[in-house]
Amino acid sequence: MTPGSDQSSGDLTRDDGYELDRSAVAAILYAVDTEDKEQLTRLMEPLHAADIADLLEQINSNDRERLIHLYGREFDGEILTELEESVREDVIPILNPQVLAEAVRDLETDDVVDLVEDLEEPQQEAILDVLEDADRVAVEQSLSYPENSAGRLMQREVVMAPEHWNVGQTIDFLRESDDLPEQFYHVILVDPRMKPIGNVTLGKLMGARREVLLVDLQEEVFEVIPADQDEEEVAYAFNQYHLISAPVVDGDDRLVGVITIDDAMVVLDEEHEEDILRLAGVGESALSDSVADTSKKRLPWLGVNLFTAICASLVISQFEATIAELVSLAILMPIVASMGGNAGTQSLTVAVRALATKDLTGANVWRVIRRELLVGMLNGLCFAAVLGVVGMLWFSSPMLGAVIGTALVFNMIIAGFAGTVVPVTLDKMGIDPALASGTFVTTTTDVMGFFIFLGLASKVLL
Amino acid sequence: MTPGSDQSSGDLTRDDGYELDRSAVAAILYAVDTEDKEQLTRLMEPLHAADIADLLEQINSNDRERLIHLYGREFDGEILTELEESVREDVIPILNPQVLAEAVRDLETDDVVDLVEDLEEPQQEAILDVLEDADRVAVEQSLSYPENSAGRLMQREVVMAPEHWNVGQTIDFLRESDDLPEQFYHVILVDPRMKPIGNVTLGKLMGARREVLLVDLQEEVFEVIPADQDEEEVAYAFNQYHLISAPVVDGDDRLVGVITIDDAMVVLDEEHEEDILRLAGVGESALSDSVADTSKKRLPWLGVNLFTAICASLVISQFEATIAELVSLAILMPIVASMGGNAGTQSLTVAVRALATKDLTGANVWRVIRRELLVGMLNGLCFAAVLGVVGMLWFSSPMLGAVIGTALVFNMIIAGFAGTVVPVTLDKMGIDPALASGTFVTTTTDVMGFFIFLGLASKVLL
Repeated sequence: MTPGSDQSSGDLTRDDGYELDRSAVAAILYAVDTEDKEQLTRLMEPLHAADIADLLEQINSNDRERLIHLYGREFDGEILTELEESVREDVIPILNPQVLAEAVRDLETDDVVDLVEDLEEPQQEAILDVLEDADRVAVEQSLSYPENSAGRLMQREVVMAPEHWNVGQTIDFLRESDDLPEQFYHVILVDPRMKPIGNVTLGKLMGARREVLLVDLQEEVFEVIPADQDEEEVAYAFNQYHLISAPVVDGDDRLVGVITIDDAMVVLDEEHEEDILRLAGVGESALSDSVADTSKKRLPWLGVNLFTAICASLVISQFEATIAELVSLAILMPIVASMGGNAGTQSLTVAVRALATKDLTGANVWRVIRRELLVGMLNGLCFAAVLGVVGMLWFSSPMLGAVIGTALVFNMIIAGFAGTVVPVTLDKMGIDPALASGTFVTTTTDVMGFFIFLGLASKVLL
Repeated sequence: MTPGSDQSSGDLTRDDGYELDRSAVAAILYAVDTEDKEQLTRLMEPLHAADIADLLEQINSNDRERLIHLYGREFDGEILTELEESVREDVIPILNPQVLAEAVRDLETDDVVDLVEDLEEPQQEAILDVLEDADRVAVEQSLSYPENSAGRLMQREVVMAPEHWNVGQTIDFLRESDDLPEQFYHVILVDPRMKPIGNVTLGKLMGARREVLLVDLQEEVFEVIPADQDEEEVAYAFNQYHLISAPVVDGDDRLVGVITIDDAMVVLDEEHEEDILRLAGVGESALSDSVADTSKKRLPWLGVNLFTAICASLVISQFEATIAELVSLAILMPIVASMGGNAGTQSLTVAVRALATKDLTGANVWRVIRRELLVGMLNGLCFAAVLGVVGMLWFSSPMLGAVIGTALVFNMIIAGFAGTVVPVTLDKMGIDPALASGTFVTTTTDVMGFFIFLGLASKVLL
């Protein structure tokens, strides 16, 4: 995006806020079709790298390849870092090696890390090879930190000052440095052993007199991030404490890098995506994945579901004789299971989310479980009344109405209980509750729903 | 948190990363029980306002009230802004009016807006009354913007410079201002009509010579946010373009405020929470809501589900005679519905998420639908094979195996189709797809699952 342009200016042409405009995409594809390089460059020029990445993800692979060939040397390294993994793996081999080299050399080292960490070995090598020696060493050092750790996320270029400096010394030092990082928001105060002890914002530095000591300007809120901390925790800290940047330290508490909020925001977004997709049993997936990949990624959860559905069917089969005598039971039984499944999903989603935001802890877990039991009972009673009447009117059997109502109440209490206890237990065991809770909870409500309803019916109605 | 403290220092005592430690909570509650104000203050002092807010949310309302009374004047305004709405409404009346007044007066105006916008009228008045006149006017002006708009989110204190200034003039101006905002990261360049035309980071300003023009230092990426833009779009823009701060303009393109990334991150987090909870049919909810509130909030979706479950039962009842003759159909039919429901949920979650990130657009919607149909068919065929064998072995009827397998394939194709078309259509109609897609999709897969399986069985097996 050129300076001064904004979303209302003509060329950007996004109709719904920031969404890529369909006609802009069409115009770009037309330029590709007619091999009009000049027009293509003109159309792409106002687009931000992130938007170009979105565009490349949304068009088909044939158009993508032709567009990249025609676009040629204009291809920017930042586009690569913004691409979904699966598309990125397709794009890298298409790029002319020289274009790739130029694109990558322009990137900051933390972006290169981001780019190469998910790539297959040969592609990773190809990119590391084009870097200058110093940059390659920096990237390789970052890659030595565990995956998804603060060490991978941080940038190594830091701006720091000894704790005894005053504003004047710091400003002179900054004016004389000729390679300040692209983006920085704080000067980090360090003690003689390189341990970070405080942050001073550039705004405070600007507004203070030269003789003021840095220690007198430091921010009230200051968090130091260990390099091996999981990036999910890093994102949580930024969100919880409204941090803008935070120093990263190694095992000896020495400053080794800095993480800025824009990187933390990306992580927060990814963690959310992971949770939402895992809750639905989808796993990591992107819209640009192929049919085969998508199918493969979704199979495991569906397989588990098939297994649990067969378990539920086994429960039903125990009551084969009962159903043969009273077919209305087969008609009504899915209602009990379905209501339990939905109530259980509600409880477990609230619990999974509360665990992620650290709002559900040892301090309140019992109160939350009690609440879920009561909510299950209350809502169960409401719908039991409705369903009792439906059962009575439809099948003219008050007893059938009473049986389905009772079964519903019990199943919804069970749903509330399982919906909280299952994710909390998984979390305690170190398993992501978003990943596995759904199966356990809906299996419980299915099996128990059929069992209570059919069991009660066989005792009472026959 | 005091300057220099970090998460490894003794008093903070958080065991799992940033989670509140159970023993720290116990110690605080013990101080409350023994009315040991000194000890309470000592224990609370190292805690960040956001952590104190979490603590207040996690303890019961009785302990909460006693803690607040004992804590007295130490109560900080920032704690209020960090609290969940329902707890906040409980806390405000407990606070001594003078403590409340002091707490609120310390806040920036955008935090006051955040605090009062969700409050009931009398509580809102009580807070606005304690503000100084200038602040009250600022807050009331912000409240005049629509709810969840950029105007509500922005802070009104901006740092700007005429477009023709150089670095020296700007630095002198900053040094002479005596009320720079607490946090700012850019100097906004404006034209003579107050239209923002560019951003210069403080880092660049520090590093450049005095005679360099500001326009030569401006950032490449620059987005201007209209004051009436929805905050969800604002968060998207910050995340997509890695913005740190962005100027907000009124209808005449005049600068009226600035939004910083920390506020955008909070919005992103809230929007995700909303999506994840809506997908589960929970709506807005917090762990600290009462049983009655929780129950009431979950009823609507369960009611809708009851209705759709009854629809599915009506479909089953059409095949009463068939089931009476062949009870194994009743045993197997939940499997077809359950597999369809799960496959549909997978598709719709991917679609809802892709719509939120603007990855699913007019440019690729047909390709995505085709992919979902193919994935449904592929996975359907896989499990049809398994299920066919199960049906055959269990009930020794190859034809029954063939029927359930065929029904499964069709239902999973339907699931893939509905799981994409439903959210896309709702989105086009301006309805949040996270809110309503689930009902439509699972109703479709339930009804169609039962209909195809039982219908086919009645034709083929009887």
